[in-house]
Amino acid sequence: MNDAQSMTSDLPGDVGLVEHHDFKYNQEFTFECGKTLPGFTIRYETYGRLNRNKDNAIIVCHALSGDHHCAGVNSLKDRKPGWWDNLIGPNKAIDTDKYFVICSNVLGGCQGSSGPSSTNPETGKPYFLDFPAVSIKDMVRSQYLLITEELGIKKLLAAIGGSMGGMQVLQWGIEYPCFVKRIIGLATTGRQNAQAIAFNEVGRWAIMQDPDWNNGQYERGKGPNVGLAIARMMAHITYLSDKGMEDKFGRQKKKQQDGNIFDAEFEVESYLRYQGQSFISRFDANSYLYITKALDHFDLYGNDATMESAFNTIESRVLMVGFTSDWLYPPEQNRDIVHTLLRCGKDATYAQLNMDLGHDSFLVHAPALYELVENFLAN
Amino acid sequence: MNDAQSMTSDLPGDVGLVEHHDFKYNQEFTFECGKTLPGFTIRYETYGRLNRNKDNAIIVCHALSGDHHCAGVNSLKDRKPGWWDNLIGPNKAIDTDKYFVICSNVLGGCQGSSGPSSTNPETGKPYFLDFPAVSIKDMVRSQYLLITEELGIKKLLAAIGGSMGGMQVLQWGIEYPCFVKRIIGLATTGRQNAQAIAFNEVGRWAIMQDPDWNNGQYERGKGPNVGLAIARMMAHITYLSDKGMEDKFGRQKKKQQDGNIFDAEFEVESYLRYQGQSFISRFDANSYLYITKALDHFDLYGNDATMESAFNTIESRVLMVGFTSDWLYPPEQNRDIVHTLLRCGKDATYAQLNMDLGHDSFLVHAPALYELVENFLAN
Repeated sequence: MNDAQSMTSDLPGDVGLVEHHDFKYNQEFTFECGKTLPGFTIRYETYGRLNRNKDNAIIVCHALSGDHHCAGVNSLKDRKPGWWDNLIGPNKAIDTDKYFVICSNVLGGCQGSSGPSSTNPETGKPYFLDFPAVSIKDMVRSQYLLITEELGIKKLLAAIGGSMGGMQVLQWGIEYPCFVKRIIGLATTGRQNAQAIAFNEVGRWAIMQDPDWNNGQYERGKGPNVGLAIARMMAHITYLSDKGMEDKFGRQKKKQQDGNIFDAEFEVESYLRYQGQSFISRFDANSYLYITKALDHFDLYGNDATMESAFNTIESRVLMVGFTSDWLYPPEQNRDIVHTLLRCGKDATYAQLNMDLGHDSFLVHAPALYELVENFLAN
Repeated sequence: MNDAQSMTSDLPGDVGLVEHHDFKYNQEFTFECGKTLPGFTIRYETYGRLNRNKDNAIIVCHALSGDHHCAGVNSLKDRKPGWWDNLIGPNKAIDTDKYFVICSNVLGGCQGSSGPSSTNPETGKPYFLDFPAVSIKDMVRSQYLLITEELGIKKLLAAIGGSMGGMQVLQWGIEYPCFVKRIIGLATTGRQNAQAIAFNEVGRWAIMQDPDWNNGQYERGKGPNVGLAIARMMAHITYLSDKGMEDKFGRQKKKQQDGNIFDAEFEVESYLRYQGQSFISRFDANSYLYITKALDHFDLYGNDATMESAFNTIESRVLMVGFTSDWLYPPEQNRDIVHTLLRCGKDATYAQLNMDLGHDSFLVHAPALYELVENFLAN
């Protein structure tokens, strides 16, 4: 390896330095709930180059706590690249030498896209709970406006996402049947079930019972940090697995014990406390409430208790991937989506990866996943 | 059916009206942590009659949120009998016409046994965090004193318990090898693993971050109710199962919606809120901290990472029962206990019941379980 190569590979994030952009949509937008906004902002990043035919674009949809920054670094000082940098970049599964990759922060979010912490032009203050309830469909419809109006793209080569991102890519196929050629959904579901709603509800309850929530009206940084940290700590357990946690932490104790009976004593305890504390510096509690509600409302089964009617319009080729240790959206829920699509005569396939890391398996180093994604995009 | 019979069976709780008793131990008791108390109280109930040979006694050990009241009613107004009334009573699996059944509230608890909310004779105030850290072994040692000193019993026919109760019965076999003839452990583990510690830690964190916790010093009823309710809501999910919650609640919505975006909308949400609220009226937050710590410290594997050395002294016959849908203490963890006992040449057997209700399966109506328990006690 020569010095130049060695320097390059020292940079975290192989797409290099990236900047975000803001798409400002200045027309009235009606949410699924019926409420309207006079316009919205969607923050996004892109990697790779859009080709002349504009037919090499892929949208990446993020999960609950993700954002638009999924590859590369935003500054040379960044110690960590974007959240899906292992998958996206030159010569990676989503090859930025071939594809033009777009990732946007969801509507309702708090990383630059319009959400409850954005300024309400009518009051000059944050929207707080006056922000309309957001659905997965609303997120996708705003992404469609970004793709068509801002980027002038008339067809997507693919939509890919895990967890809530997987819900979005399914909704892409349903809403815009001829627009998306391929759909890749990972660790997701066609319907949020009771257990997943239950965990979200406890998180929301922790936030709303924090006196600093103040019915959603709080100054930036002075919100319900305690409640939000609790919500995150609990949710984080659901992203892992029994075996994954056992392998990573087991019953290992902290080297330095504080001596107080209820201080963090096991490694897994300090890890969770750290997860909770670091989350409050980057996430807005109201956005957490809004987005978890979007998850809880997601139900492609609808009134007739089958997904057939939702999937009838889909024209995309679909790949769904389940992970054996995922107990939040277990493999069966991913497989059921494919079975339904097949019953509808659609082009769909299911892959199941034997991984121990739980729900978050879709985010970690997994050559078997890279291979699946790379080949599905190429063929 | 004649009128008398009909009246009897209208009473909830077939052992009828029962009263609790308090065993006051007035000698110094040294906890496993090294700290001492000048004495303690253990509240208990008994059902059935101790025979002349005093060889028909069974101890029932309760789980985290249980208590000494496991059968019958304490008042004619009680609408619900004790927590294991389906298992204990005349002609039931634990037949009170044959056996003398004892159930005590654990040391560290808050239902009459000494715990952090008990009065410290030195200060006249509750112990709060001056109460010594409690272990599963401490609970069992205090039960042993109750059984031998208060009740004059020299041998137990059996010890039975689920979840934390299962930990206690194993500890009974280890501590007092010739004292307990039979051990029945249900839905339990030989070692609290990382995921179970993690859930307990989030619950403790929610309690300790509640300003009303006040470092453990609060007036009765004015404690960290918000934090305790959150802890209970989350823990309650771990006692159920994905399928159990889906069958019971699915995505069913509340009939009356409050109209506020984040109010309880799904049935499962109001159910959890109710579970949280009803818990704060019957449980002490500091006891919750102490007892979850006892669970987290439970580890029969010890330093050599096998249970063999812990089990070498056991003389009891052991029956362990795992429940297929239990993901808190999965069947494998129960089976591993039996495999280890068999490797040590002990008399042990494992049964696995196919039930959908998750960890709490050991508490619900289950004829297959009744049959197992009845026969294991008789043979």
